[in-house]
Amino acid sequence: MSVRKVMIMTPRKKVGKHRPKALVLLSGGLDSSTAAAVAQAEGYEVYGLTVLYGQRHAREVKAAKAVGRALGLKGHFFSEVSLGKDGSALLDRKAKVPVDRDIEAEIRSGGIPSTYVPARNLVLLSIGAHWAEVIGAEAIFTGFNVIDYSGYPDCSQAFVKEFQRALALGTKAGRNGKAPRIITPLIGLDKAGIIRLGTKLKVPYMLTWSCYKGGKRACGRCDSCRLRLRGFEKAGLKDPVEYED
Amino acid sequence: MSVRKVMIMTPRKKVGKHRPKALVLLSGGLDSSTAAAVAQAEGYEVYGLTVLYGQRHAREVKAAKAVGRALGLKGHFFSEVSLGKDGSALLDRKAKVPVDRDIEAEIRSGGIPSTYVPARNLVLLSIGAHWAEVIGAEAIFTGFNVIDYSGYPDCSQAFVKEFQRALALGTKAGRNGKAPRIITPLIGLDKAGIIRLGTKLKVPYMLTWSCYKGGKRACGRCDSCRLRLRGFEKAGLKDPVEYED
Repeated sequence: MSVRKVMIMTPRKKVGKHRPKALVLLSGGLDSSTAAAVAQAEGYEVYGLTVLYGQRHAREVKAAKAVGRALGLKGHFFSEVSLGKDGSALLDRKAKVPVDRDIEAEIRSGGIPSTYVPARNLVLLSIGAHWAEVIGAEAIFTGFNVIDYSGYPDCSQAFVKEFQRALALGTKAGRNGKAPRIITPLIGLDKAGIIRLGTKLKVPYMLTWSCYKGGKRACGRCDSCRLRLRGFEKAGLKDPVEYED
Repeated sequence: MSVRKVMIMTPRKKVGKHRPKALVLLSGGLDSSTAAAVAQAEGYEVYGLTVLYGQRHAREVKAAKAVGRALGLKGHFFSEVSLGKDGSALLDRKAKVPVDRDIEAEIRSGGIPSTYVPARNLVLLSIGAHWAEVIGAEAIFTGFNVIDYSGYPDCSQAFVKEFQRALALGTKAGRNGKAPRIITPLIGLDKAGIIRLGTKLKVPYMLTWSCYKGGKRACGRCDSCRLRLRGFEKAGLKDPVEYED
């Protein structure tokens, strides 16, 4: 797996007053917030895009807004898209979010979690491609990473590569040789690695939201909370977010 | 260019009582309505998907509904997605829809029309991939064709091919070797050819809507109306839709 160096703390892209634009897919979670900070650290003028696809709760939208503000993004787009409720515990209000399971073991087994949303990242990247073309962004940053990769087919490097090719052929920008590059700075990192990197970059993790449930405080028991808590633990850091007792 | 045979009038896919499902991207225009009829003629159980992406008018949504009903589709999904207003005369209410120009000459020149919506077909196909996966469709039909192809980068066969690969890698269905096939039955046909085919298939062209403007009657002067009228003329048929005087 090719791992992209992301430890660059001094903007290298700044040329005079002109900074290239980047769009970041910002869900309000830990990964995408870190990806946004990386884009800023690399010297891009960063715009957020939060896609509302019928998530079970508005909690993460609130988080995305707060993170965007705290990072001082140049702009923040919100696109709604109505998707089907079937087939994902993330969209279906009646479906139970699985809790207390050994998600890391599940991931190692190569299974696709019940929280998989059909073609989600295809939809997210496509809407991202739209906005990137509208603002003339050179790059689209996403928080895809190895942990996601194992479980979700649409987080893999191979998928991103194919999507990049489709982008080159299927957009006006691409036709002009200016398709935005999809950059996945976290692709080679595990949760602890992401948290370590984000902590250096001063990502406001307190404002992020990872829990699959929509309560006031994170549940601490769903797959996403468990991965996050384990990540902080492995990184030797304390998660600033409050959890239910 | 590979041209797919679409003249099959007797369903060949029917095996016992089980018919494979197909999703068709149905805008309510002439091309997509014809593609839907082709899918039915090929024996699929056909579901429509109309994506509302902030078009200037609701007229074509009404048309899509009417066409879907007239064709007797098994189901019809409507997905909204909020896209940016910049960069397309189709989305921006303040932008003028170009009229009275020689659109065929413009297309031959290789230019991208002002009605290009950034990454539109990428977004449409992705949302199509989502719904196809939700219902377990084996195919996604679209009305992409040579005329569109010339002007819009995201109607080309090369783009569709790349998208197909992304679909194979980036969905659960694809991972299981069951990614829906994207079928473009009109890709090799010009407008007259599409109209001839659709007429044989009894597509209710009276219900379709092609005009870029949203009036009561079609304007007859925008690019889309002109291509349509020229198509009927070349096919030696009369367009049943009413036009402004």
